[in-house]
Formats: sequence, structure tokens, C-alpha cells
Amino acid sequence: MRTTIGWQSLDGSTDLRRVSIERRELRDDDIAVRIDFCGVCHSDLHRIHGLLGETGLVPGHEATGTVTAVGGSVAGFAVGERVAIGTIIDSCGVCPMCLIGQENYCYEGALTTYGGAAQTKGAYSREYVLREKFAFHLPDGLDPAAASPLLCAGISVWEPLRAAGVGQGTRLAVVGLGGLGHLAVKLAAALGAEVTVLSRTADKAGDARRLGATELLLTTDPAQTEPARGRFDVIIDTVSVDHDLAPLLRMTALDGTLCVVGNPLMAGPRILELAQGRKNLTGSGTGGLRQTAEMLEFCAEHGITADVEVLPSSRVAEALERLERGDVHYRFVLDMSDLDRSAA
Amino acid sequence: MRTTIGWQSLDGSTDLRRVSIERRELRDDDIAVRIDFCGVCHSDLHRIHGLLGETGLVPGHEATGTVTAVGGSVAGFAVGERVAIGTIIDSCGVCPMCLIGQENYCYEGALTTYGGAAQTKGAYSREYVLREKFAFHLPDGLDPAAASPLLCAGISVWEPLRAAGVGQGTRLAVVGLGGLGHLAVKLAAALGAEVTVLSRTADKAGDARRLGATELLLTTDPAQTEPARGRFDVIIDTVSVDHDLAPLLRMTALDGTLCVVGNPLMAGPRILELAQGRKNLTGSGTGGLRQTAEMLEFCAEHGITADVEVLPSSRVAEALERLERGDVHYRFVLDMSDLDRSAA
Repeated sequence: MRTTIGWQSLDGSTDLRRVSIERRELRDDDIAVRIDFCGVCHSDLHRIHGLLGETGLVPGHEATGTVTAVGGSVAGFAVGERVAIGTIIDSCGVCPMCLIGQENYCYEGALTTYGGAAQTKGAYSREYVLREKFAFHLPDGLDPAAASPLLCAGISVWEPLRAAGVGQGTRLAVVGLGGLGHLAVKLAAALGAEVTVLSRTADKAGDARRLGATELLLTTDPAQTEPARGRFDVIIDTVSVDHDLAPLLRMTALDGTLCVVGNPLMAGPRILELAQGRKNLTGSGTGGLRQTAEMLEFCAEHGITADVEVLPSSRVAEALERLERGDVHYRFVLDMSDLDRSAA
Repeated sequence: MRTTIGWQSLDGSTDLRRVSIERRELRDDDIAVRIDFCGVCHSDLHRIHGLLGETGLVPGHEATGTVTAVGGSVAGFAVGERVAIGTIIDSCGVCPMCLIGQENYCYEGALTTYGGAAQTKGAYSREYVLREKFAFHLPDGLDPAAASPLLCAGISVWEPLRAAGVGQGTRLAVVGLGGLGHLAVKLAAALGAEVTVLSRTADKAGDARRLGATELLLTTDPAQTEPARGRFDVIIDTVSVDHDLAPLLRMTALDGTLCVVGNPLMAGPRILELAQGRKNLTGSGTGGLRQTAEMLEFCAEHGITADVEVLPSSRVAEALERLERGDVHYRFVLDMSDLDRSAA
């Protein structure tokens, strides 16, 4: 076994502890990665609080780093190369979903980067070991700190944007301007969509435009929402708390799509809300290997990364606590280099 | 005013009474229609029982007949021509939905053929008067009795089939082999789809194949449903009672669509059911003028009508009562010619 240092939640609180954790010895197709940066995802917070009944979590599934060792049969990575790790690290490889490159929907259940039945220890740590197949090359030109949130927040909106065929001239709305939402705006605008941010407050109008939206539509103002009836071909809903989908479906076009990515546990609307004007409702969960690699290339080409605030990993509790009260623009990223120093 | 005879529900029961009802004098763009046949729709039953809080209903919105008089400016119909009437008889004409030929989704609310705010008297009657714009030519070769259910049951499945792009090779499933379901099988098969009927009982397997399905899949048998995971590009759900959508979503393909047309008041599933494998959920409500006319032409071309049992209109109570207990293969149609005779 190899040992490394990580941040673990021992009691369901956000006061994570610096612990020693084990990684497996490299198998033939494994690479070892020195984690340089890891994004702090909203789902980390939910899962620390017990959403999936996990205990002793070492969170983290938005990581970038450097290859430090490779197994005997590794062909795609060499020591010293830049690498990225996302939300899954293995899958059955033979089911219909794996065969078409949607390992995120593996019929056997993909192995998640942290937690789950296998109690995997995540990337809030200095080293990670995984099969090369599930690691991504981090393209040149992408800042490794600002790129790390692409590996969950980014792909979580990229896949539904692509599935909905978003491109030149698509009338697209993004609900919720947080970690996922701000990347949805950037990615959709780069794909050629005409992007509107839907928000309950006007204070993000400047940010919305800076990120690439043409406008912010205030959802609390009927004078703005009423003329928007049936206006959007695609709405990406990134809000993480329960909310009424009916007003969003009303703004969805005939045969348009409302894709809910922020809150999968939420109840859906009555069928009638969909039938009145033939609206599609869908959801999506992170992404497959092929599309994640495509997204990273697209981001490199278009200069897209997340807007991040980088903190030393020792301040992880502060990051989680500020995330919890919404004080984040738009993603915290932990710098793991402080784990090389001895604990205080 | 013109007067005619119709069948009215006076007390919310299916024991309809023969009554005299009034029709307006013809406006310039009106036609008068002698109703020859009218289908008995499941929604007639629900609405007689008070689903929408209506009283004194004269139901009927699946009618075929003959033009008996035309207004001064009518250009599209002549006396003696075959005609069909569907679920709506007017709309605002200027909203975005009307402008694209989806009058069924008119933003002001389409005027329904019976009931509604205007308490329109429906086509369980011998004469109807409506704007020529909302009447359809009944193509040659379509039997007027067997064609009448196309005007609601047929278009209710035709529009979602077309919206979902169903065609050659589409893997399609139909849930519920009733009025809507049996027409969905016929229409989808004629469009080139590979059609499976999903049923809780095997007794309809012969009918399913006769209607154009390649097989019947027994939803109560895991040995049949488990291998069907992710199998269908499109599922059309015509079941009119509440039921669990999760097993149907499980059989829906990645980026496939489950369209619920049988029960719009049903609650939708949790978003998670859609997010696990990126499934689309939608609903649909009857159809627009353009697509209804297209469907009638398609049916004439492919020799498609409903499987019907024709009863004299005086036996409407029997038809409703048998429909209520599911004793129908696959649509009752009332022959209105008995209304010309004096009441017993």
C-alpha cells in the first residue's frame, strides 16, 4: 500500500480532519497522480451532511494534478504530464452504456471517485491512484486550479447542453448562477447560444453579462416572465434547493427541454405541466469519458475555466462553510501543496 | 337559432338524456354539419363524472359527417362534402401557438368542441356548426364511422409520434392497448417503427401483432423487462389510471422519450428517475389543425382507421358503461342517424 494525506469528515460536520489514507499499489494500468488542486463541489457538502448515508468521507472529485508514476502497461500517460480526475474512476466496461462511452450511466453502477459502496477516498488528498482509462489529459493553456471544477460542474452542464443540441442561435436559459450555472453560461455562449440568466435577484446582472449572457431575467417580475412564455428552447436548471418547476416549464418552448441538474432528488411536476404545450423534462448526471475529454479540449480552445477562489487545503472547513451560505464566486478550489508540509 | 337533438348528461351520470339543443345561425365563415358518427372518448366519461367541474354536458369531439349548409364566405367546403370535427373549434388565431398551427396550445385557450368555460354542446348530436377553418375534409376511402376516433384518439398519439421523430427503425413501445394505444400501434408501425406493446396481461398479444406490433412484452415478468432496460427510443403511455412511471423510464433509452398521453393529471416521477440515464419525459394534448389534416391524409394513404363497435346513439349509456369497465375493442362509435326518428 501507498500512504498519503487527505481531509476526512469524521462526524458529518464540515470540520474536516487531516488524516493519513492509503492508496493501492499501482496495477499495470494504473497511474499515480499528485493532486495539485481540487474543486469544492456542492455535492461534497450534501454528502458530508449524510445525503447518501456515507460516513468517514474524504470528498473530492474535481481534481487536477501531475502524473508521478505509471503501471507497466500504461500507454497514454507519462510521468510529469498534467492530468485531471473527475467523478468516476471505474465502470463495468461491457454494458451498453459503457460501450457507448456513457460510463456515468454504467448499468452496474460506476465506481465513484469518493464514497459509495466501496468507500473510496476522494481527491481532497495529495495523491490519487486510478486506471489510466479514467484519467484525462489536462490540455495546455488551462490553468490547473481554475480548470479543476470543469471535472464535475463543467461536465454536468456540458453533457445536457450537447444532448439538447445547443448551438448557434439556441435560445437558452440558465437558472441559478453558482458553480454549475456560471459554467453553463460560459459553455453555452461559446457554443453559440443566446444565453439568458433566470434569477430571483437582479444583483447578478453584471456577472451574467460578463460570463457571456445577453441578459438577466428577473423571475420575480411578471412584467419580465409573462412575455417570456414559450421563449427558451433549452433551460438548464442548476438550483440545488427544491423549487417549483411550473414557471420554468411555462418559459420553455414547444418541444423545448427543461433539464434539471442541480437537484436530482426533487419531485417532478404533474404531467399536465408538460402536456400543456408539449415540453420535455429531463435530468442528467455528470458525464462519460469521451464527452469529458471533448469538453476539456473545447474549454482549452475557447479559454474557458471556472471563476475560482483558491484556498490552501487546510482552509477546507472555511470553504465548505462559506459554500453552505452561498458566499462563493463561483467555486472554491483547494490547493493541496500544503499537505506536503508537516501538520501543525 | 337552429335547433337539433343531442344526448346530455344532466346529473353527472352516464344515463344521458335525449334533448333539444340550439346551434347558432351560420356566420359568414361557418359550416353546418350533419353529424353521422361520433366516437366515445375516455375523456367524455371522465368529464361526465365531473373531472373538470362541468355540468349539463353534451359530450362528443370525434365526429364525422356531411356538410349541409355553408356561410357566405366559406371557400373550402361545399354542401354534401364529407367532413370531420375534432377537439377544438376556435382559437385566438394570433398567439405564437396559433401562428405555427398548434391551435391546441393557444395561449388564450382554444375553444373546445364541448364543455369548457363556454359550455359548448358537443357532437353527441345530429348537427354541429363551426368555423370552416376548424373543420377537416374527410379523405376518400376512410370509413366515416371507423375514422371518427382519429379526431381525438388518433391525433393525440400522432402529434407526439411526429414530435419525437418516430420513423423507420425507431424502437417504440406503446403502453395500454385501448382507444389511443391501438391507434398508436397502427400509426407508429405505418411510420416504419418497430413497435412493442407493453402490457400487464398476455391476452392482448394476438391483437398487438394484428395491429402491427412485433411483440407484446409482459411488464409483470422481470425476465422480459430486465433485458429491455434502455431499449426504447420512444414510449407512448396511454394508460388512463395512475401508475408508476419508473419501470417505463427504465426501459427508455438514453436521450429517449417517455410521452404520457393517457393521464395528464398524474404526478411526475422524481428528477432522479430522469437523470439516471438521461431520459426525457413529456406529455401532449390532442393536436393542431395542420397536423390533424396531415394525419387524416396519412391514414387514408395507409388505410388506417380505428377498430370500432358502432352502436345507435340511443345506446350511448351502454357504450359509456361498457367503456367504464374496459369492455371495448377498441372504440365505441355512435351512429347519429337514429336522432332523425321521433323519440320513443
